[in-house]
Amino acid sequence: MARRPRAEGKARARERTSPAGSLKQLPFSTYRNPYAPIEVVSADQLEAVHLASLQVLEEIGMNFLLPEAKEILKKAGADVDPNSDRVRFDRGLIEQAIATVPPVFTLHSRNPERAREIGGNAINVTSIASPPNAIDMSGGRRPGNRTDFGNFLRLSQYFNICHMLGGYPVEPTDMPVPMRHLEAMQMMLELTDKVVFGYSLGRDRILDVIEMARIARGISEEQLLREPSIWTIVNTNSPLQLDIPMLWGMIEMAKRNQPVCVTPFTLAGAMAPVTMPGAVVQQNAEALAGIAFLQIVNPGAPAVYGGFTSNVDMKTGSPAFGTPEYAKATLLGAQLARRYNFPFRASNVNASNAPDAQATYESVNSAWSVVMGHTNIVMHGLGWLEGGLSASFEKFIIDVEIMQMMAQFMEPLVIDDATLGLDAIREVGPGGHFFAAQHTLERYETAFYAPFLSDWRNYETWQDAGSLDATTRAHQIYKKVLADFRAPSMDVAVAEELGAFVSKRREEGGAPMQ
Amino acid sequence: MARRPRAEGKARARERTSPAGSLKQLPFSTYRNPYAPIEVVSADQLEAVHLASLQVLEEIGMNFLLPEAKEILKKAGADVDPNSDRVRFDRGLIEQAIATVPPVFTLHSRNPERAREIGGNAINVTSIASPPNAIDMSGGRRPGNRTDFGNFLRLSQYFNICHMLGGYPVEPTDMPVPMRHLEAMQMMLELTDKVVFGYSLGRDRILDVIEMARIARGISEEQLLREPSIWTIVNTNSPLQLDIPMLWGMIEMAKRNQPVCVTPFTLAGAMAPVTMPGAVVQQNAEALAGIAFLQIVNPGAPAVYGGFTSNVDMKTGSPAFGTPEYAKATLLGAQLARRYNFPFRASNVNASNAPDAQATYESVNSAWSVVMGHTNIVMHGLGWLEGGLSASFEKFIIDVEIMQMMAQFMEPLVIDDATLGLDAIREVGPGGHFFAAQHTLERYETAFYAPFLSDWRNYETWQDAGSLDATTRAHQIYKKVLADFRAPSMDVAVAEELGAFVSKRREEGGAPMQ
Repeated sequence: MARRPRAEGKARARERTSPAGSLKQLPFSTYRNPYAPIEVVSADQLEAVHLASLQVLEEIGMNFLLPEAKEILKKAGADVDPNSDRVRFDRGLIEQAIATVPPVFTLHSRNPERAREIGGNAINVTSIASPPNAIDMSGGRRPGNRTDFGNFLRLSQYFNICHMLGGYPVEPTDMPVPMRHLEAMQMMLELTDKVVFGYSLGRDRILDVIEMARIARGISEEQLLREPSIWTIVNTNSPLQLDIPMLWGMIEMAKRNQPVCVTPFTLAGAMAPVTMPGAVVQQNAEALAGIAFLQIVNPGAPAVYGGFTSNVDMKTGSPAFGTPEYAKATLLGAQLARRYNFPFRASNVNASNAPDAQATYESVNSAWSVVMGHTNIVMHGLGWLEGGLSASFEKFIIDVEIMQMMAQFMEPLVIDDATLGLDAIREVGPGGHFFAAQHTLERYETAFYAPFLSDWRNYETWQDAGSLDATTRAHQIYKKVLADFRAPSMDVAVAEELGAFVSKRREEGGAPMQ
Repeated sequence: MARRPRAEGKARARERTSPAGSLKQLPFSTYRNPYAPIEVVSADQLEAVHLASLQVLEEIGMNFLLPEAKEILKKAGADVDPNSDRVRFDRGLIEQAIATVPPVFTLHSRNPERAREIGGNAINVTSIASPPNAIDMSGGRRPGNRTDFGNFLRLSQYFNICHMLGGYPVEPTDMPVPMRHLEAMQMMLELTDKVVFGYSLGRDRILDVIEMARIARGISEEQLLREPSIWTIVNTNSPLQLDIPMLWGMIEMAKRNQPVCVTPFTLAGAMAPVTMPGAVVQQNAEALAGIAFLQIVNPGAPAVYGGFTSNVDMKTGSPAFGTPEYAKATLLGAQLARRYNFPFRASNVNASNAPDAQATYESVNSAWSVVMGHTNIVMHGLGWLEGGLSASFEKFIIDVEIMQMMAQFMEPLVIDDATLGLDAIREVGPGGHFFAAQHTLERYETAFYAPFLSDWRNYETWQDAGSLDATTRAHQIYKKVLADFRAPSMDVAVAEELGAFVSKRREEGGAPMQ
């Protein structure tokens, strides 16, 4: 029976279970955007996008590659071509099916205090998911491995602005494929107590990780059916296809009332029309078909609409992110999701090769788009670099600051006699200053967002301290957080049950690729 | 008679007058925000802020340090204290005076194509103004000088997203003070053909630069009275004071129908209450008093409401910029300006010591705030660093990219049959790709914003090219732009008249500090 390498186990044992660290950060909290969302098109234009998507599903349809899925859709009344994978949907069928999507649901984790509200205008941030590489200033770029995987999980647990996991924060490529989902989920459950994510890579894998999420929560199968406890994302194979592993994930998750986010990967000019409205029409068609399928499998199963439309660099074909086109597509996707009353997911993304000014302006453009679209799940909120090909430790820290600032931006202004400050203005009068005013002294410690990465010292002091730029400071901060990290506690019986399950499945050979 | 150093003159002679450069950029254009502005408070809350400001002006009042100004205000019916500088304003007087502010006006420059619309939802970007230092990667930080001043003017002229000048992009500290306004304005007028700015540093200086703006346009004094041709900003000496040089500038500019932007510098916790609503109440009181004064001097004179409220770092007292508090204060200021139907000015600012990730996230937060507040003049749009103590060449380039992306974000989505792309989706079908679709081929060259700083090549290609981060690339770009620069043409007679005016004023000793 394979075992986790000894060094990793020892390192884990040193991580005590007390709350970690001295770094000042915002509390683990629920953020709601109090401002009206940005609407990028009129109601009529939105309807035109909606109707065009329905027309796509009616006329062109979508390929469903799994025979069981076609069977389910045929029974539900879809037009299933007997000689191909093509399924066409009457608009009435789509509209009827999507009517059962819950607008808001709760996602549970093994720590009850980490449960998240998904929907409405609650905004949740996840760490980066699924990049093949890890990168940092001292170690350079390398294929993701168990150590980096663990370290990104530690950062995800440590920072309160990481509300839930969005997948493997880096692919642990040194874990054998048949066992990877077991080992990775065990580490996710042990190193964090936040909402977990399972990949829809075929039926065996998704069933394994659903079971592990159940064990970690110490709940019955019946309770699991009532309480979403793990989530997944299904990327359509744009244009207009859903493959077998994804469809198995959708079926098994929906049957068990676990949430699935359907996210078409519609890059305008590559896998979708070069016009942003056309790319969003296709995104919308694929999302509606996927969500309708989930509802047909199990009416009322929690579902999330994922927007991930961006443009490509037409010179190289590379995907671009955090662009003006991305911002508009994200806001348009959000507007569609609000029309349907679906929870919405979008992302904090960029296409830079370094955690530099480019990564930052593309990310902050993404952050404003997702927040002003009232995005319920901000995927890749922390650490994404290089179009998703790398997880960056320094970018993770930069993103914590960016997303904390967005969270603080969402704190509504309080307007009352105390905040209007007439007494303070009267006390100080023309030509004075407010540093010593009673009004200031009573509030100065909590009045403003206190950044942990930004350096506001004057130039000379900053220079004397080594002229460190924000990326270099982010490097130091992530190293310190890892050094200070304490893993969350886990009930011994639960840990043993998890271990026993993983051992049993290892002995059975895990889940070989089919 | 003093002369500009010979080397500078020679370098200038080499700058030919053809349109410059090969760098791909957006055209010189007028951008309007098609999306509804973000409202950070309700209508009732906004009214509470407004009423509190009126109460400040009625009860506490403001100090006007110039006797001539007090005389003007006394005649207009303000309550002028005979024993101090204090002036109190009845709310009726304020509301009557501000009713004559034009909601939109045109600002002219010596090139008719550069005229700008100020007001409505037109958004204009200026380069940085007034920092004492210049900084770049190769030369480090140094007191602003004539060479850097000229180079920032060249960048301001070259980049189309710089719609107008906002002042000296760096203080030319090596120009003798009595002559500085003359030499600096001559360089601004020769190296750029965009809207110019004059500083309100006493009566002589503002009259000199108004005259130079008139000469550069080749217009009569009567035409100047009809056509705003130079603008200025007046920062109140918060809290609640206006000093003598500023008041002279206001009087002389308003009398000649030239626009004045009244911008209180209300740092919450320092020169204003520590609560952001309180700081904005004070900002609003000071802005209303200043704008009312302009209208009393000359009803209908163009005026702009300036928002510059931010918070301080309560640990060091340093100003902070691009913070969540700054974003909310800016949007609240914009909301007030819309209530009064005034043109609004805010800024693209940050408090970083380097053109790094911090400078960038603080700047992009500022950029979204100003754009989503429908800010008509985005001051310090390009090049600001270190809380305004340095003009950064690299940051200038980064900001061009940031502001171009915001401009592109403001291009509304077109929704029609062609953009909805049903034919393309039909042509490609499930499982295909759009690279070779007719719909793509017809549009791919212009479909998306093409960045000039962002590097979207894959990691390996980027690494092979030297792994240059965005700041290093910005350094290379600014050097290249300066090497390619061609000054705009100027009529020989106009150039001679300008030179003669400057010579005459030099011989008279310029404008010595009083």
